[in-house]
This record gives sequence, C-alpha cells and structure tokens, in this order.
Amino acid sequence: MTLQFALFGAGRIGAIHAGNMARNPRADLRYVVDVNGTAAQKLAQAHGAVATDVKAALDDPSVGAVLIASSTDTHADLFIASSKAGKAIFCEKPIDLSLARVDQCLAAVNATGVPMLVGFNRRFDPSFKALKGRLDQGEVGNVEQVIISSRDPAPPSLTYVKVSGGLFRDMMIHDFDMARWLLGEEPQTVFAMASSVVDAEIGRAGDVDSAMVVMCTRSGRLCHINNSRRASYGYDQRIEVHGSKGRLIAGNPTPTTVEIANADGVLGNKPYHFFLERYAEAYASELDQFIAAVSERRSMPVSAEDGRRALVLAEAAIQSLDTGVAVSVAP
Amino acid sequence: MTLQFALFGAGRIGAIHAGNMARNPRADLRYVVDVNGTAAQKLAQAHGAVATDVKAALDDPSVGAVLIASSTDTHADLFIASSKAGKAIFCEKPIDLSLARVDQCLAAVNATGVPMLVGFNRRFDPSFKALKGRLDQGEVGNVEQVIISSRDPAPPSLTYVKVSGGLFRDMMIHDFDMARWLLGEEPQTVFAMASSVVDAEIGRAGDVDSAMVVMCTRSGRLCHINNSRRASYGYDQRIEVHGSKGRLIAGNPTPTTVEIANADGVLGNKPYHFFLERYAEAYASELDQFIAAVSERRSMPVSAEDGRRALVLAEAAIQSLDTGVAVSVAP
Amino acid sequence: MTLQFALFGAGRIGAIHAGNMARNPRADLRYVVDVNGTAAQKLAQAHGAVATDVKAALDDPSVGAVLIASSTDTHADLFIASSKAGKAIFCEKPIDLSLARVDQCLAAVNATGVPMLVGFNRRFDPSFKALKGRLDQGEVGNVEQVIISSRDPAPPSLTYVKVSGGLFRDMMIHDFDMARWLLGEEPQTVFAMASSVVDAEIGRAGDVDSAMVVMCTRSGRLCHINNSRRASYGYDQRIEVHGSKGRLIAGNPTPTTVEIANADGVLGNKPYHFFLERYAEAYASELDQFIAAVSERRSMPVSAEDGRRALVLAEAAIQSLDTGVAVSVAP
Amino acid sequence: MTLQFALFGAGRIGAIHAGNMARNPRADLRYVVDVNGTAAQKLAQAHGAVATDVKAALDDPSVGAVLIASSTDTHADLFIASSKAGKAIFCEKPIDLSLARVDQCLAAVNATGVPMLVGFNRRFDPSFKALKGRLDQGEVGNVEQVIISSRDPAPPSLTYVKVSGGLFRDMMIHDFDMARWLLGEEPQTVFAMASSVVDAEIGRAGDVDSAMVVMCTRSGRLCHINNSRRASYGYDQRIEVHGSKGRLIAGNPTPTTVEIANADGVLGNKPYHFFLERYAEAYASELDQFIAAVSERRSMPVSAEDGRRALVLAEAAIQSLDTGVAVSVAP
Repeated sequence: MTLQFALFGAGRIGAIHAGNMARNPRADLRYVVDVNGTAAQKLAQAHGAVATDVKAALDDPSVGAVLIASSTDTHADLFIASSKAGKAIFCEKPIDLSLARVDQCLAAVNATGVPMLVGFNRRFDPSFKALKGRLDQGEVGNVEQVIISSRDPAPPSLTYVKVSGGLFRDMMIHDFDMARWLLGEEPQTVFAMASSVVDAEIGRAGDVDSAMVVMCTRSGRLCHINNSRRASYGYDQRIEVHGSKGRLIAGNPTPTTVEIANADGVLGNKPYHFFLERYAEAYASELDQFIAAVSERRSMPVSAEDGRRALVLAEAAIQSLDTGVAVSVAP
Repeated sequence: MTLQFALFGAGRIGAIHAGNMARNPRADLRYVVDVNGTAAQKLAQAHGAVATDVKAALDDPSVGAVLIASSTDTHADLFIASSKAGKAIFCEKPIDLSLARVDQCLAAVNATGVPMLVGFNRRFDPSFKALKGRLDQGEVGNVEQVIISSRDPAPPSLTYVKVSGGLFRDMMIHDFDMARWLLGEEPQTVFAMASSVVDAEIGRAGDVDSAMVVMCTRSGRLCHINNSRRASYGYDQRIEVHGSKGRLIAGNPTPTTVEIANADGVLGNKPYHFFLERYAEAYASELDQFIAAVSERRSMPVSAEDGRRALVLAEAAIQSLDTGVAVSVAP
Repeated sequence: MTLQFALFGAGRIGAIHAGNMARNPRADLRYVVDVNGTAAQKLAQAHGAVATDVKAALDDPSVGAVLIASSTDTHADLFIASSKAGKAIFCEKPIDLSLARVDQCLAAVNATGVPMLVGFNRRFDPSFKALKGRLDQGEVGNVEQVIISSRDPAPPSLTYVKVSGGLFRDMMIHDFDMARWLLGEEPQTVFAMASSVVDAEIGRAGDVDSAMVVMCTRSGRLCHINNSRRASYGYDQRIEVHGSKGRLIAGNPTPTTVEIANADGVLGNKPYHFFLERYAEAYASELDQFIAAVSERRSMPVSAEDGRRALVLAEAAIQSLDTGVAVSVAP
Repeated sequence: MTLQFALFGAGRIGAIHAGNMARNPRADLRYVVDVNGTAAQKLAQAHGAVATDVKAALDDPSVGAVLIASSTDTHADLFIASSKAGKAIFCEKPIDLSLARVDQCLAAVNATGVPMLVGFNRRFDPSFKALKGRLDQGEVGNVEQVIISSRDPAPPSLTYVKVSGGLFRDMMIHDFDMARWLLGEEPQTVFAMASSVVDAEIGRAGDVDSAMVVMCTRSGRLCHINNSRRASYGYDQRIEVHGSKGRLIAGNPTPTTVEIANADGVLGNKPYHFFLERYAEAYASELDQFIAAVSERRSMPVSAEDGRRALVLAEAAIQSLDTGVAVSVAP
C-alpha cells in the first residue's frame, strides 16, 4: 500500500520532496498546492499529480499525509488544519518562528493523535546517523563534549534575512537539534556570541551572520556550535563528539575522491556546494522513514517536541546575545 | 519517449539494471528472460514487466533495446540475434571469452548498424570519470604512467572460477579497459606475472588469484595493473595517473565520513564491500548514457571495439604468463 | 659567539631545554640550578655544565641568559633577580599566576631593558607557524572565526591540580595566546563554561577538567576554545581559522604515515602522546629564536606583554565562569 | 665511549653524515677526506675535524670507523683499504656498479671480519620501519603483494646520468632492497619495462627515466616497483603491502599539517622536496644504529650481502629490459 501525499509548497525544497516521492515505491504524490499556481501546476505535472487548493487536498479521504514545505509563516495554519483533517504530517523546520504558535501546533497533534515529523533532515544523513549509532553503542563511552560546525556557502538575500527569524531560528535551529540528539541530555544553560563580520548589511537588517554558542547540560556535558553564513569552499557541516573513551568525527563528504598533486600541493575536492547536494540522501531517507512510521504505526524518528525544544534553545541563545548572560532553559 | 527494454538475465546484475530502469524516467522494462523461469517471473513482477522467452522479446517491435546480463556463454548468441532483430544492445562484459566469437559479434553489429554498448561500468564511476575529465583537460600534462589497483573482497567459488575464463578475462578485463581509456594510446607490449598465493585450490583449478601486469605504449607510456581475489578490507579500486605536470589519484569512496579516535589509533571507514555498492551510481549512469546515446543517435561511450581491445590485452597477458616473455599487441 | 645559559629547573621541561642547548651550536649550558640538588647535579653532568645556586649563576658575568623552567611559584623572583642582573630571560609560561606579580615582572624588564621571551612554545610549532604565515599573507582574507581545540591525554595528579592555578591559567593560557596571535585583534569579551565531567575529584579540588570559551573582538571576530584534561587517543591540538576567502586548518601531526586496512576499517596513527613529543621541534625552534633575538638585538617573537595578556584573558574566563556573564577585557 | 670516524666524501651526502655525527653523542668526526681539498677543509672545520688523505686517516689507530660517501667509482677501493685497516665500514649505496667488484668487497670484509653497513637509508625511515615492524608481527598475515612507488622530483643532470650506472643501479636499487626486506623471500623472477618518456635526452644518453618492474618469489608473492625521474609535486616514496589479513600502507609524510580550503578545493602540503628532507631522520637513525652495532658487536641492520642482492636484482632488471624476457635470479 502506498501513502498518498498532498504537498504544500512547490519551491526548491518542495521539488526535492516531490522527486523523492517519485522514487519511493511506498509514496504517491497526489496533490501539489502553492500560492504560485504556475509553480504548483508545473511540479504536479512533472510527477503525475494534480495542482489544487488546501481545502480540496485535505478533504480528499485518500490523502493519508501532508508534506508542509511552504513558506514558514504558513506552516502553523497548514499544520493545524492538516491535524484536524486527520492527516499524518511531515513539516519542514521550523514549525513556526513563535514558540506560542508552535505550542498550539503541538496541542493540535496531541488532540488528534496524528503522526507528525519535523524535518530535521540532518539526523538522516548517513554519516551523522552512523556517528549517532556508534555513540549509542557506547563506542566512545560517556559523552563529554560535542562540537558542531555548520557553515553556509554564502549569505541569503537580505529580503530573506528579514523574514527568516534570524540566524538562530533559521540556521542554528538545525544545530540545536543535533546538539540535543548527540548530547543525550537536555542543555540547561545557553550562551551566545555573534556578529555581522561577514556582511555589515546583515547587521543593519537586525540579524547576525556569524555566531558561536556554548551550552552545558545538568551533568556537565559541554557543547559548542559555530555558524557562519559564508564558507567560500562550500557547505561545511561537521560534528565532533568527545567521550570518556574516544572521539567520533563526521566530516564533509565530497562528490568524488579525486585529488591532484602538483607544484602547489595536494588538492582534494571541496565539500558539496549546499544542502540540496549534501543532504540528498538524507532527504530521501527522511521521507522513507516518515512513511515507514506512518504505515507501521511506529514512533516518529523526530517528534514535534523535538521541533519545539530546538526553538526553545534558539530563543535562549537570542536572549543570551541580547543580555550577555548565560540563559537557563527549563528542563 | 521512453526506451522499451528486454532484459536477458534475472540474476544479481540483471536485478541491478532492472532497478535502475525503474528509477530512470526514460527507460521502461518490458520483458525479462531467464532460463530460470521463476527468477524471470519474480523480477518481472517486481517491475511491472512480463517474463517471456528470447524470441517473443525480440519479435516485439515496441522493444527498442536489449540488456544482456545472462551468463557469459549465452552473450554472443543473444548479441547476434538482437542485432539481427535491430535492437540497440547493452551487453555486460565480456562479450565472449573467445576473441573469434567477439569478432563475429562485432561483424553482426557492423552489418546491422545497431547501437551497442559494452558494460565497462567503471568508466561511469563519478570519481574515475572526474579523473578522466581532468586528464583530458591537460591538468597533469602528458601521461607518463598509469597505475591501477583492483582487488576483490574474496575469491569467487571454484565452480565459478572454472567457467570464468580465468582472472585476466574475467576480472582484469575491466582494468585493461581502464588502462586504454587512461593511457590515451594503445598498449603495445604486455607482460604478466601471476600466482595462486591466496588459495592454492584456485591454482589447481588452472587459474591464478593474484596478478601483476606491466604494459608499454608506443610513445613509452607505462602502465601497471595489480589484481587480487582477496582484500579483507573490502573492494579496493584505485587509480593513479602520473603526468608531466602532476599526479591524479582516485581513491576508494567510503559509505560514511565517520572516524573514531581511541587508544588504538584513528579508524576510518572501509571501502564499500563490493562492486554492487561501489558502482551503484556508475550502473545507473551507464544505463542513462546508453539510453541517451540511443535516443539522441550519439556515439556510444563504450564501443564494441573497446570490448574487443580489452580482450586482446587479456589474451596477450595470458600468453605472456605462459611464456615469461613480453607479448606484442597488434595496433 | 655562543650564548651562555643558566638553567633554573632540572625537571621534565628543564631537561628538554638542556637537550636543545646541547644540540644548538649557538647555546652553551653553563649552570643548572634546582632545589633538588641531585637532579641539578645529574642534568648538569649530562651536559658538561655545573650545578650551582641562583646567586652564583647570576653573578657570573659570562652568563648572558637565563632559562626559567622551575615551578611556577618561583618564576617571578627568579625573573626579577635575573632582570636586575642584566640577563636575557627565557621564562616558561606562566610568568606567575597573579596578574599583579606579572606586572611587577614586566616593570622589572621595562626598567632594565633586558630581552625577554615567555615560553609560548606553540607559536614555534611548524604547522601552527605555517598556518600563521599564510594567514598573514592574506590567503584566507579577513579573519572571521578562530576555533582552537586543545586536549591533554590524561588529567594531571590532584596534587598538581591544586597548585596549578586552575585549568584556565595552567592549560588554556596557551590557547588564549594562540587566540590573540591568530585573531589579529585583542578579544574584547570573554565567556566561559566548564565542568568536571571527566573526574569529579577535580571538581571537588576546586578546578574544572572540561571547558569551553567564546570570545569576541571589537570588529566582531569570534573565537572558540575547547579544553579537556582527557583524550584517550593522545594529545589533540588543532586550529581552524575561517576567513572571508577560505579556511585554514592545522591538524595533529602523527609519528608515522603507516595505516592498516582490515575488516575493522582503515586505521591510522594516533597523534603524538603529549607535549614533549608533539612540540619537540617547537621547543628547539623557540630556543633558537630566543638566541637569535638576543644575539642580533631583534625583538622577541613572544613578549612579556604577550604573557600578561594571556593571563588577563584567563582571569576574565574565570570571572565569567563564576558569574555566568560575559566579561569585558580592557583594551 | 665515542666512535671516531673518518669521512670519505665532503659532498651533499657527506655533509649530512657529518652533521649527524655532530649531533650524535656517540660519534666523533676525526677526519674528512675529499679529492676537492677545499670542500674537505670546509666541512672538517665546521665540525672540529681535520682534513687529511686516505692513508693518514686509515693509519690512525684511534679511528674506529669509516663512512664512505665519495663518488661511486671510488667506493670499492676505499672499502677494501678500510677493511684491511680493520675499520668498521659504513658505505653509501651502491658499493659498486659492478657485481664482480662488489664480490671482491664482500670477500674483503669476510676475510677481515670488520663490521659493515651498506647505506640503504630507507630501512631507517620511521614510517617504513613501523610498517616493517607491523608486518613482522603478522598484522596483515602472509604477504601476498608488495607495491613500491619511488619518484624523484626532477631528473639529474645528463652528466650524472652518464656515470650513474643507469636508473636500475642508481635509483631503483633502493627499491630492490625495500622489496627484499618486505617480501620476506628472495625474488626469483624479474621483469622490467622502461622508457624515456620524461626526457628523450636521457634516452639518447643510453638510460631510461621511467620504469616498471614486476617480480615473483618462489611461493608466489608478487612485487611491483615503479620509478620516475620526475614528480612535479616532490619526492614520492610510498609502500603498500597486501597480506592475507589486510593491507599496510606507508605514505608520504609532509612538512606540516596545514591545509587550506577555498573555492578551488582543499589543498594540503606536498611531500618533502627530496631525499635530504624526507630521509633526514632516517640518516640520523641509520648512523646511530651503525654505531650501536659496532659498539655492542651486534649484527648490522643492513649487511654487505644486502647490498649485493639488490645489485643482482638491478642486473636482472637490466637484462630483462634488453631481452623482453623475465629473468631468473639465482637463490
């Protein structure tokens, strides 16, 4: 039995998910919905689906799941409506930029009991997943420190910056999720430093483009996250976990293994350019596990609560940045 | 327009190609043929195809192409029949173990003019292809030496060894093709040394399990190939090209980038286990380029003549091994 | 002309310096002084020097330089006495655990004008020095972020912990110096988090064994330092500098390049075990540059002020750890 | 007790050994002898030695050892004279270009029983030695294949080429020694291919600049050696040993660990430029072990017979190159 999907959002990330549905034997893309009718039309056609509106999609009882990949400000409404319609929900991160609104969404899924996954795609990256698996098997003993590096190839447009919710909610939210996942304990204190050393315009727009966070859990596990909106060599996404018995590192995969040696040195590949390339496998695997969890009524690999906790950490970081003080996070 | 395929052979490699057809929007698997009717049935069903026999498949005018992935001794007959039926041919290597028979096959396709690709999948590996591209762009200048390492994880069964045609025709044939591709000139002399140091049973079966070849082209370019039927760490497939201006290396890709550091050292991933894993992308790309060449009437990326030349080098190596003398290859 | 040395301290680090003097054609070890007379005797004998006391060593006009490698609490007195005696001073870090006392030392050298180097040996490590050279040549453009990892193989004894001045003054002081050196601007704000997750005994002794610091300069350059007293895989000392045009990394050198591949993976060397091995070359180069600066009346590669500024940052980190607030550092 | 040395040869390699003697507490350089009196004078002065002639050096009973680092054509005479004078002999490779002459040298040391080491410095390289140690401990099981890459940064002068004895006796001789050392069995058959693809002038001078050899031992262990007189990226010296239980690789060490990532890729260090840099540690260790063997009357780590066997393999390679036939080597 395949799972029939309605896809909200026909943009870049929507297209990724549509492609993965086409390649997944257990998925069937039924509807595409987008405020841009032409985009919806085009993506629907490419995959034998129908462009329609939200109501029609949610009213169709054959639709078992929705994938919310529209602009962030539309997530919560779609989320709540889909929940009421009894559809399983795959929601791109963040659920919403407002914690209050996220709580409403969580209340909605709790009320209806629909299965729900928040799109923290990095948990499905083969290298990060393998690292986590080895961590869970105790290969490095008790976790002591986690170091997460996460750097985009180039800053987004100022237009996007202004509606993004800021670096902590928009970009570092992924790393807050990774931190929780890897620390094995909830962070209790959060401190942030940041600047707009990459582009002063971003600073003038009220955001930062470079940030460093440190966090501590109750038992004293420490975590550092660094973010930058610029990395001339491509998308830099690395993790280090230091434990009582050793260190696990997951570095950047590369498109090929080719290296050239000449009078300049030994030159290897850059990392993949950006998330679409780096996380191609992760997106496919994420969808597949969502379908598996819905079909087999298993618990979701990333829960709504995971989406909420990451936002809580982002809020704490923002408050810390404003005050210069470490912020305590409620357990 | 999709290309309709008849697939001959429902074994391991046939299943790979069937899966790639399913994922390729320009391919349509119509028929599966295998002496093992159950296997044909099962593979056909999995992909919405029909299990049938050779005649029926070749008689269907809607079938535009055949993919020959059956046992080696059936290749030539299927090849010639398909050629007569006017089908485009994708033939797994080797076309045949006998050079005379290969020549008959080449005569057949020359007579009918059907497009034909021999399945030297390694040319489609992302790393090897990238290396070749940079070579062709002159990044290391004039080619001086090529070194090819190719090692299987474990020996095949003795049953297989006995019908395989021997290591040079069965295994090193891939490397002979890579050598020609990378040298940019035909090898003129071939010398081989070999032994059954891995497993004396293989020696008693009349074959070798470890071999080293050196070759020289007319302008003095040198090439070394080493093969082993055993590599406890997995499938080892590496290339080095030394040119007047530098060195290109394509190493083994790994499933993940995870490494662990502990009291023993710093431990990274093994290479992929075997060809199905290592060359998964190569197989998909090979099929795609076959379809593109057929559809767009472009020349095949690997020609029947390429299949023949690799076998000529294998024959020379075998003769050299028997005599202890370097063997000249006709240009 | 060789420079005659009096060496204060015949312990582990004193022995390193004595050995480097023996191998350096411009150095001559004249006297060894240690409260442990036997140790002084033994080290002196091994290098054709004389064991004596402080006064005799400083009174000898042929002695041009002192190397202070005794226990930290004796540094300042020896420093001031040597300065008064007009000797060039090579002082192991830290000059003193008290900032006030360091200021007295600086006043002393300022008054007498003797050349003075503080032993921040890492600046002389071939890899770190090469990284710094490339940074200074603008290879990665404007510095945006610096990340320093510094991890000891195993915690020191509790006895040492209690007199060490604490992790920030004893261990991270090196990293504060590296941070200043690499940032190219003075840090303006310092924040620290720390715990005793490695060994609770260290916590009970009033110290921490795991720490993470973030700092920010006036122009918004960010710096992260992580420290741990435990790394089962050896001495882990790495640097990353992210600039507007790229990233520079200096990783851990290894004793050999040997790697083994087997069914477990591909296993390379651990880093060197600890600082004596890792920084062997750095110590020799540091001494050589000290001698060169004295002989050629050039400015010292690491000044007394550098020693002071690193301690200021350590103090700020300690204050931040106590208060949970980012601490401003006077420019 | 130090060992008093007479050094024959004040050129590049002589200077290396003189420097190592100066740094070795058990060595004392007494005499330097060179046909170029000025060079001898200068090197002697730099190390507190005396420039003299062969007779005076060998007549001095305080001289315990000679180090023969003069031009190859003078080795045998010096060797035999030193042997008669009862001096321990450290002779740079090759002992002589003529096998007959080498046999006379061996007869000489056999007659007098003086300790003798032939300067195959690579056996003392930390990485190669570590690889060999792990091989001997059975870490990869039974040896099946050895692959040796050895490439110079740039061709020597034509003048040198003409007196060098040719690539096999001059350059590959080192690799023949490594091959024997690693195979653990004597090669029984040798085959060589070669060309002057790097520089046709070298061909016209009667030599080759690019060569590939394959060898086989009695039990079927295979070995490949590749040599080139040109490697634009520096001195390339790598070893692979494949055994029944795994693979050992020793790659090229690099001056630093610094790598830069930018829009071009990730660029690491080149290997060391040439043998003086790459094998600096090996030369020091070689001298030290020579002294240890003399002082402690232990067997030499590289014997005169080792020097002879490597030349035998070079001769076989040359004969093979001339005839196109694999050459058998007497056991």
